[in-house]
Amino acid sequence: MKYKLTIAYDGSKYIGWQTQHQNNSIQEALELAISKLFNESIDIVASGRTDAKVHALGQVIHFESKKQIPCEKVKMALNTLVETTIKIKKVELVPEDFHARFSAKSKRYDYYLSLDATNPFIINYMGIEKVKSLDLNLMQECAKVFITTTDFTSFTSSKIHELKNRVRTITKFEIIKENNYYHFIIEGNSFLRYMVRMIVQTVIEVGKHTITINDVEKMLVAKNKDACRYKASANGLYLVEVKY
Amino acid sequence: MKYKLTIAYDGSKYIGWQTQHQNNSIQEALELAISKLFNESIDIVASGRTDAKVHALGQVIHFESKKQIPCEKVKMALNTLVETTIKIKKVELVPEDFHARFSAKSKRYDYYLSLDATNPFIINYMGIEKVKSLDLNLMQECAKVFITTTDFTSFTSSKIHELKNRVRTITKFEIIKENNYYHFIIEGNSFLRYMVRMIVQTVIEVGKHTITINDVEKMLVAKNKDACRYKASANGLYLVEVKY
Repeated sequence: MKYKLTIAYDGSKYIGWQTQHQNNSIQEALELAISKLFNESIDIVASGRTDAKVHALGQVIHFESKKQIPCEKVKMALNTLVETTIKIKKVELVPEDFHARFSAKSKRYDYYLSLDATNPFIINYMGIEKVKSLDLNLMQECAKVFITTTDFTSFTSSKIHELKNRVRTITKFEIIKENNYYHFIIEGNSFLRYMVRMIVQTVIEVGKHTITINDVEKMLVAKNKDACRYKASANGLYLVEVKY
Repeated sequence: MKYKLTIAYDGSKYIGWQTQHQNNSIQEALELAISKLFNESIDIVASGRTDAKVHALGQVIHFESKKQIPCEKVKMALNTLVETTIKIKKVELVPEDFHARFSAKSKRYDYYLSLDATNPFIINYMGIEKVKSLDLNLMQECAKVFITTTDFTSFTSSKIHELKNRVRTITKFEIIKENNYYHFIIEGNSFLRYMVRMIVQTVIEVGKHTITINDVEKMLVAKNKDACRYKASANGLYLVEVKY
């Protein structure tokens, strides 16, 4: 049986998706719960890793087991077994050839940014810029520059050189002002490491008039891993949906 | 100089207001920062304690020092020195006879309750009831029972016997449904230990039809510390304002 799970998590207290030498990864918390429920050692595969402190509303994982447990039962049992900062939203049986990572057609990430540094409740849930205002029109204009298919080498971790193909497609990039915060919505076929955070912070810098849209266009065509030195903080980022 | 500070905090990770044998109290975090800024050992006095995991939007404290540092400077410096889950909203100089606890005229607490157990982001910020619906009209009717001046012995910790005067006045108690959650607003001259949480959960039980308003009236007149066995979880509670 191949199980597909859609999960949400508050990433505040986790070291990120992936299990490393030390513990407290989301992967580990889930594998422990799933292995306990199925009474066998189970490895899970995610649509992709999320960095430390990044949240998810719709992360997708798959795993296999010979045991068949009704999906509703798996959902209820796992929600009892895992910590309350992780919630299983949906459990489905999928065909053998489904793969959480390789079958993914597109992903949506949202980023929340606040200009209010005096609110202790958003610290783990939004990025903060200590400025009076941002130029929303200019940020929206800048966002359009990124809606393209191109080599995004300039907007990824400098450790990425081993990855050959850095061409990605961004299909949607919207910025909305809601009450006291800015809401960024970005969709694409897939994303390189740090790509969303680096693009978001670059757009914010345009909104602060630190750099111009022309500078951003130059960064993008540079295809140089040192071209962009901006990266938004992880705590404002949410993996919202993975489409298959 | 007597300083009055208005502070907000995310209580999720704290053991509560008061410093105990072990650390991580809000009091301790603040005293450390204030003592560092004033370069002397400073004790602070709060309007009242908040339990472990209870939040504050407008807790008030006072402390004294011979040193005079401009209020704006105190605010900025402390916000740099304390953890980001504590924020100093306001700093004022007050007359010698001001006392954060004894000068308080009234307090407002808010409580947030959600019926959605599948959202990992509200776990630390709202109470959760795993029921389909609550009888809002009945809860609003029940709230009126508490708007009175009376002995609230039935709605406090059973360890309270040493406290002689348990007469308190509740001046306002409203319940509003907002989107997917219930918002309780309660104001009074002062509150006994656990009083707000016990009253809120009692009203919720009425909303679930577990008990009747008549049962609640009986509890209140009983003036018996064993009369009420309900207590809402701490994580949905916010100390919103202290009036002087």
